[in-house]
Amino acid sequence: MHTDLYQLTMLQSYFERDMTAPAVFELFVRKLPENRNFLLAAGLEQALNYLENLRFTEAELDWLAGCGHFSRAFVDHLSALEFSGDVDAMPEGTVFFPHEPILRVVAPLPEAQLAETRLINLVNFQTMIASKAARCVLAAPGKLLVDFGLRRAHGAEAGLLAARAAYLAGFTGTSAVLAGKMFDIPLYGTMAHSFVQAHDDEVAAFADFARTQSGPIVLLIDTYDTEAAATKVARLATELKQQGLGVDGVRIDSGDLGAHAQKVRRILDDSGHSEITIFASGNLDEWLLERLVSGGAPIDGFGVGTHLVTAADYPSLDCAYKLQEYAGIARRKRSEGKETWPGRKQVYRVHDSRGRLDHDILALASEPGHGTPLLQPVMREAKRITPAESLGDIRARTARQLAALPDGLRGLGKARPYVTEIADGLIRLAAEVDQRSNKAGDAEDAGQT
Amino acid sequence: MHTDLYQLTMLQSYFERDMTAPAVFELFVRKLPENRNFLLAAGLEQALNYLENLRFTEAELDWLAGCGHFSRAFVDHLSALEFSGDVDAMPEGTVFFPHEPILRVVAPLPEAQLAETRLINLVNFQTMIASKAARCVLAAPGKLLVDFGLRRAHGAEAGLLAARAAYLAGFTGTSAVLAGKMFDIPLYGTMAHSFVQAHDDEVAAFADFARTQSGPIVLLIDTYDTEAAATKVARLATELKQQGLGVDGVRIDSGDLGAHAQKVRRILDDSGHSEITIFASGNLDEWLLERLVSGGAPIDGFGVGTHLVTAADYPSLDCAYKLQEYAGIARRKRSEGKETWPGRKQVYRVHDSRGRLDHDILALASEPGHGTPLLQPVMREAKRITPAESLGDIRARTARQLAALPDGLRGLGKARPYVTEIADGLIRLAAEVDQRSNKAGDAEDAGQT
Repeated sequence: MHTDLYQLTMLQSYFERDMTAPAVFELFVRKLPENRNFLLAAGLEQALNYLENLRFTEAELDWLAGCGHFSRAFVDHLSALEFSGDVDAMPEGTVFFPHEPILRVVAPLPEAQLAETRLINLVNFQTMIASKAARCVLAAPGKLLVDFGLRRAHGAEAGLLAARAAYLAGFTGTSAVLAGKMFDIPLYGTMAHSFVQAHDDEVAAFADFARTQSGPIVLLIDTYDTEAAATKVARLATELKQQGLGVDGVRIDSGDLGAHAQKVRRILDDSGHSEITIFASGNLDEWLLERLVSGGAPIDGFGVGTHLVTAADYPSLDCAYKLQEYAGIARRKRSEGKETWPGRKQVYRVHDSRGRLDHDILALASEPGHGTPLLQPVMREAKRITPAESLGDIRARTARQLAALPDGLRGLGKARPYVTEIADGLIRLAAEVDQRSNKAGDAEDAGQT
Repeated sequence: MHTDLYQLTMLQSYFERDMTAPAVFELFVRKLPENRNFLLAAGLEQALNYLENLRFTEAELDWLAGCGHFSRAFVDHLSALEFSGDVDAMPEGTVFFPHEPILRVVAPLPEAQLAETRLINLVNFQTMIASKAARCVLAAPGKLLVDFGLRRAHGAEAGLLAARAAYLAGFTGTSAVLAGKMFDIPLYGTMAHSFVQAHDDEVAAFADFARTQSGPIVLLIDTYDTEAAATKVARLATELKQQGLGVDGVRIDSGDLGAHAQKVRRILDDSGHSEITIFASGNLDEWLLERLVSGGAPIDGFGVGTHLVTAADYPSLDCAYKLQEYAGIARRKRSEGKETWPGRKQVYRVHDSRGRLDHDILALASEPGHGTPLLQPVMREAKRITPAESLGDIRARTARQLAALPDGLRGLGKARPYVTEIADGLIRLAAEVDQRSNKAGDAEDAGQT
């Protein structure tokens, strides 16, 4: 039921007209957002899970029958509908570029059509967040990076899937408890300002927290005066040490994070507490991370929230899922500015002698190609043919993929675009499809319908 | 479990230290996004529902006990935790401004603290979308406006709640089927390009669709050539009329929507089909709506998707939920740039002689105020004291609120900010709280801890 009304109205026509031949849909991104030099595929696991479980409940069928848009015969068709098709896809964590399909569905037209809305909804979001997170990872190499975004994510599912996408892109963990439970992502947390405020004085708050925690002790020091609080932490840490307890870190959440971190580092070091780490948060994005890191701010880790989980500078991808073939005949959309490449396609990646990405080739799946084919078979007749990948494996793939990026694509600024060549066979097919459509158009104009 | 790890670590300390006295938290927005002159409160229904159902399952408790962050004693505390407190709030659909609390929770500290993450997650998102949708409604008065955003919403919940928020703000309906079922929002849909492409010619696609639908017939005409398709639709509509069937509308989804609409309108009118409406979609936002409407484009309705459901120009609000009082003592956060007003507050709204908003007064709830108090009691001891409002009633309230906006705030551009005065009692309390904190700080610095 996570679908658009028009999918169901189209299905009603398809069933009534027996248009249930195999359809080929491909999911791709039309163009890169302004501040992205590459994208990172993510969300395949949830997409496959969705297809495996695609069916309507009795309650849903009853509602559909009564909502005024559908015939009883159509609702009966829906009651028997399950996904029976094939899926090929780029593994999660694969770097990709515009117009390259990352997912292909081959299934009877009604099944493949119905799935459009939710497939885009799942893949668009995680791909967007993983791509944003990868920029943070590249901007702050070796730093502890934690997703802090749940509260400003767009709903509960966005919070969960953002934590997953950030982790697979190389983040260290998340603050979202349910994401920790569901995806086995390491959890991180400190304390809120309200904890300090609920105590009548700041030191009492710090001491209470340190004495009642079983996990790491990270104290938030900017509720009133950051440097004054750092001095209190240093004194408390000395006191606690004598009792066998420790303070692991401090968190700074406001003001000039770099300047505060410098002063706090000095206060902690001067009092013999160089073991206490500094963690920073507060409206961070990849640009601020880069500035703090390149400025030499003594910050060990960062909490990145709103900008990450909303992909704030560009909160959507121009992601499409388009019919490329029906009943064995290649198809192509020609709407202004939204033209697509027809047919079943494969993406071949060519590396240079140092193992870095050199260029890609977008070709017909049936064309001979050279380079590494990126789309792999993952589902046949609705059954997975490869086991679900662990998030750790995906995260390791991402790390290898990011390491293989050419230098030009690693920076935050706009780079010279990566080259995706179009293979000859694909160019020829597009021309054939256009010629056929033009003929069909002429025929119609002559009234031969 | 939709919470941040730090909420649970803080709760562990609160329980161990018996810090379970009543706490007062207020949810507010610190500042307006760049292109907003007002905000529209939304999400209260889901927030109350969350509080009513706040508890941990056995499986969740087991996981928490084993995750390494918590003591068994604490997990036992959690097993008994339910929300037992009070809530006051602005009704959904109320216009509000920065620093004005839209929701107040009074509950034992652990309960009120735990709820922070999900309350912000729910209220931040719907308020953001309702506020964006209200701008579309003001930009295109009297037009049919349909939420088309599910596929690019950030996950499933975002798609559902965006449909709800847009509808309560004045949208006509949504394409999201499940939102129609869950919230009784009118559903709208047309057809996709793939429907046209799956047919060997365009007219056959149009005819098939028209002959197999029980709901409205809206034909998508930009798959190949918009004006050529409009001519085909006109011819088909004449043919269908003789069979007692009709075409309700056409949809244009690409190119210069205004220019195409002019030509299509002429084609339809010249062939005697002035009854066929024109619907437009494709990357629309409130600015484009305003341009098309003020330019006189003959478009009857608009599908607004990505920009609406992601609030693309500003995909988060600076929404906070802060401790304002604990154990009867007012509290205040003083972090740089993030200072809050302490104590339990009320917002009074003063209208001018024509019933338009004139100014607001932010006061202590205990202060005598004049004007209309906006925060109303909605929950006492975890029980709702007012029935859940229908979405229709909320939508009607929004319409009244938008009609009462001063002219300056109705435009899309930045207006002179609306005035929210701070009442004397609140100013005095903030000064007292600061004086007390300073004293506490001095005492600590002198080592009296």
